Amino acid sequence: MRYELYYWPTIQGRGEFIRLALEEAGCEYEDVARRTGRGSGVHRLMRMLAGRDAGDLPFAPPILKAGPRVLAQTANILYFLGTRHGLAPRQERLRLWTQQLQLTIGDFVDEVHDTHHPIASGLYYEEQKPEARRRTRNFLDDRLPKYLDYFERVLARNPRGGNWLAGARMTYADLSMFQVLVGLGYAFPTTMRRAGPRYRRLEALRRAVEARPRIHAYLQSDRRLPFSEEGIFRHYRQLEAGR
Amino acid sequence: MRYELYYWPTIQGRGEFIRLALEEAGCEYEDVARRTGRGSGVHRLMRMLAGRDAGDLPFAPPILKAGPRVLAQTANILYFLGTRHGLAPRQERLRLWTQQLQLTIGDFVDEVHDTHHPIASGLYYEEQKPEARRRTRNFLDDRLPKYLDYFERVLARNPRGGNWLAGARMTYADLSMFQVLVGLGYAFPTTMRRAGPRYRRLEALRRAVEARPRIHAYLQSDRRLPFSEEGIFRHYRQLEAGR
Repeated sequence: MRYELYYWPTIQGRGEFIRLALEEAGCEYEDVARRTGRGSGVHRLMRMLAGRDAGDLPFAPPILKAGPRVLAQTANILYFLGTRHGLAPRQERLRLWTQQLQLTIGDFVDEVHDTHHPIASGLYYEEQKPEARRRTRNFLDDRLPKYLDYFERVLARNPRGGNWLAGARMTYADLSMFQVLVGLGYAFPTTMRRAGPRYRRLEALRRAVEARPRIHAYLQSDRRLPFSEEGIFRHYRQLEAGR
Repeated sequence: MRYELYYWPTIQGRGEFIRLALEEAGCEYEDVARRTGRGSGVHRLMRMLAGRDAGDLPFAPPILKAGPRVLAQTANILYFLGTRHGLAPRQERLRLWTQQLQLTIGDFVDEVHDTHHPIASGLYYEEQKPEARRRTRNFLDDRLPKYLDYFERVLARNPRGGNWLAGARMTYADLSMFQVLVGLGYAFPTTMRRAGPRYRRLEALRRAVEARPRIHAYLQSDRRLPFSEEGIFRHYRQLEAGR
């Protein structure tokens, strides 16, 4: 099965969670909006969003086309891919637990996004700077440690041990956790450097994912877009200032 | 199976999506934090959140205890309950489509919540009123119609017709959509009254859910908490003013 991924072509964004799973699973896929030439590009993404293609109507990207099927919602796509490509546990209980962790990672990512967009996604950061400062302060003081403490504890409590959040093998939730940790290091370097020693298990997870041969190769390739101030994880010096 | 629901005892909140599914399915359940007496109450919810009970560690309520299993994340709990109690389609494609719709409803609910809490969940509304006004204006102008148009279109495109979002039978996503529509009518009555005629299919869904005998009985019972300015859907006259 050759998959098609529909996502904004210039940012990692939420599409990156899907890219990491496709890469780790060794799937063949086309990153449709990034390809040039006939039948590719952003207009195909826009067509898909307008519902002019067949299949279930998506609300927003990322969108995965799998043969005649059209799936959206990051966690839902990952559940689908994980089940088919060995990135989710086989046991039903652990599979739902993995999905629960993914949904919590999704909430965490939403809160990271809202540090620079507390008023509206449709406005520029420059149009909501004072609000962004207030929201970021609360996020760094309160929410960031709450989430990181939680995931560190999940790792400590995993009865199967190792570096992974759920069960004995790596899952799509671990790939997503990796992306969040790397993204936070980009966006809030001072905070994350200081917090580092408290989160040894998360750091071990980050390193273990990075060392996976396919992920390692992907991160070196030009398929991996860089972090930037257009994505979810943005580094604005003034938002972290004074810490 | 007698379920235990762990959620804040005085608000509908995200717990209400679970309550509606449990009620429609005719499940036996205890709303643990709302019961008085030995072994009940908010301290049991706090114990669960602290991870002192057995089972997978939840990050936040709602939490469902199903025998030895502990599940969290609204959409994940609904997937679990829906599959077991006839509130999800049997076909795998339609089951993921239902879950995708539920996740989009969840995003919609998050945005409703953030109209009165754009800076921090941990602060009072009164501490973020100017920001709430800005965020609400954007939400009502831009995001609300975007979401409602989307779900109206999903209903129009359902090849199985009828009043339901996915497939030929009612699912947990329809119950959640009902709750959102009723909540929006409470929070933004002027806006919703004016928008009404554009969303006939959504209104038909709302009425069809309300007419379900078990839902009807539940809504009349004292198990149904009222809307209030402590929950997700809040009516602050000043936020809707001038529309």
